[in-house]
Amino acid sequence: MAYTLQQLSDFEDIRTLKHRYFRGIDTADWALVRGLFTDDVTVEYRGGGYKVKCNGIEETMLMLANAFPSDALAMHLGHMPEITLTGDDTAEGIWYLEDVFISLERDDHTHGTAIYRDRYRREDGQWKIAHTEYDRVMEVVYPRDKSGHISVHLLARKGLKPEERSDISHLLEWG
Amino acid sequence: MAYTLQQLSDFEDIRTLKHRYFRGIDTADWALVRGLFTDDVTVEYRGGGYKVKCNGIEETMLMLANAFPSDALAMHLGHMPEITLTGDDTAEGIWYLEDVFISLERDDHTHGTAIYRDRYRREDGQWKIAHTEYDRVMEVVYPRDKSGHISVHLLARKGLKPEERSDISHLLEWG
Amino acid sequence: MAYTLQQLSDFEDIRTLKHRYFRGIDTADWALVRGLFTDDVTVEYRGGGYKVKCNGIEETMLMLANAFPSDALAMHLGHMPEITLTGDDTAEGIWYLEDVFISLERDDHTHGTAIYRDRYRREDGQWKIAHTEYDRVMEVVYPRDKSGHISVHLLARKGLKPEERSDISHLLEWG
Repeated sequence: MAYTLQQLSDFEDIRTLKHRYFRGIDTADWALVRGLFTDDVTVEYRGGGYKVKCNGIEETMLMLANAFPSDALAMHLGHMPEITLTGDDTAEGIWYLEDVFISLERDDHTHGTAIYRDRYRREDGQWKIAHTEYDRVMEVVYPRDKSGHISVHLLARKGLKPEERSDISHLLEWG
Repeated sequence: MAYTLQQLSDFEDIRTLKHRYFRGIDTADWALVRGLFTDDVTVEYRGGGYKVKCNGIEETMLMLANAFPSDALAMHLGHMPEITLTGDDTAEGIWYLEDVFISLERDDHTHGTAIYRDRYRREDGQWKIAHTEYDRVMEVVYPRDKSGHISVHLLARKGLKPEERSDISHLLEWG
Repeated sequence: MAYTLQQLSDFEDIRTLKHRYFRGIDTADWALVRGLFTDDVTVEYRGGGYKVKCNGIEETMLMLANAFPSDALAMHLGHMPEITLTGDDTAEGIWYLEDVFISLERDDHTHGTAIYRDRYRREDGQWKIAHTEYDRVMEVVYPRDKSGHISVHLLARKGLKPEERSDISHLLEWG
């Protein structure tokens, strides 16, 4: 009926792991984000206009750094976790994503939601993201409203500049 | 000073119950949602343009399925719970709702927030929603921005089609 | 490896403290909000168009009541806490803020996000906010879309009316 101290602690730590991930991507804190994945992490995001697929931490970090560049404003919020412990060192989680992504390059503004299905693994006492995937619930792409004045834009400073970017077309499929 | 294991477990399970509810309604997963209510659940939502009132699970399920039809895009996020245990098998919860509701039928886009006040009851070892009500904090209804391209719309596939809908005017009052 | 009952209870209570704060400000429930701060609370919010700085509870309450007046619609959501216990009665917290602020006075609509860094202190058995600061991640200020129909507006009723407001220019710097 009741969870054990260890189980309750695992719920806490798995939640915080994912919270840290969302803070890390929107602030382009790649050192923080890298520490949150297992080396063999797998990623599959099925958006409307895009599909993402990564195998292993190197592909995942390459994709993320290029997906949050200096000409994007990004808000990624992970809500309402449903965590299930599946073993002593394994767990699953469902999360409800809301994201806003304003691209100054494409001049569009995407508003979307999605349901994440993650798998977590404890390694050396630390919970890490071993697998993450989502399917969109809704996604609407608006032309960017240029009457809006951008008064703070952290990624402009911390995200990859055009000359620093890599080709990630093998990881990210459009259309 | 400290909660017991049972109390901490109850906080976890009550949060997950409500998280599941929000995922269920926005993905039209009515089998999931039905299992989250007591049979005698009561509902009172006091919106701006609408009032909802349901008695019992049949009215509640009828209302929900018709309120999230195939021509709606819906995002309902329940945030920042304040849970109070009021007995061994009873609890109360305050939640802060943010919702976006885009109606392709009415061609409008509602953005609102509300404060929920819920009551929960444990039945056969499962926490369920026994009463739920909310009052709006803010609500703004915009004409739908048709320059937005809808690239994912799950309810179009999973929500009730026009010919499948029921009259719920006895449960939902407009204006 | 596992937290103690006391530590898990502290996580619960600190989260609820901050949840209550956000509900309190958006519903102008100043009696509720006042009870959530230590007397010597310090505040530093570094927005795009504004900087806020308060010392002590009187300045903080004066600032808050005037920052959420009757001609504002406000949504302040605190997400994805990362809480660290730093002593028996002290803790730190990182939160991800999303806020929408519609000013009918300035006819603008601000959408922003920020990362909070808080300090908490337990006094007489109650966790309180002892220090709070944030830095913006993004902030965009749009002209208000007057095609939107405001169907609920709680602050119109509960927020300070023009004749009830105080000069807070010593606490809030614009530009």
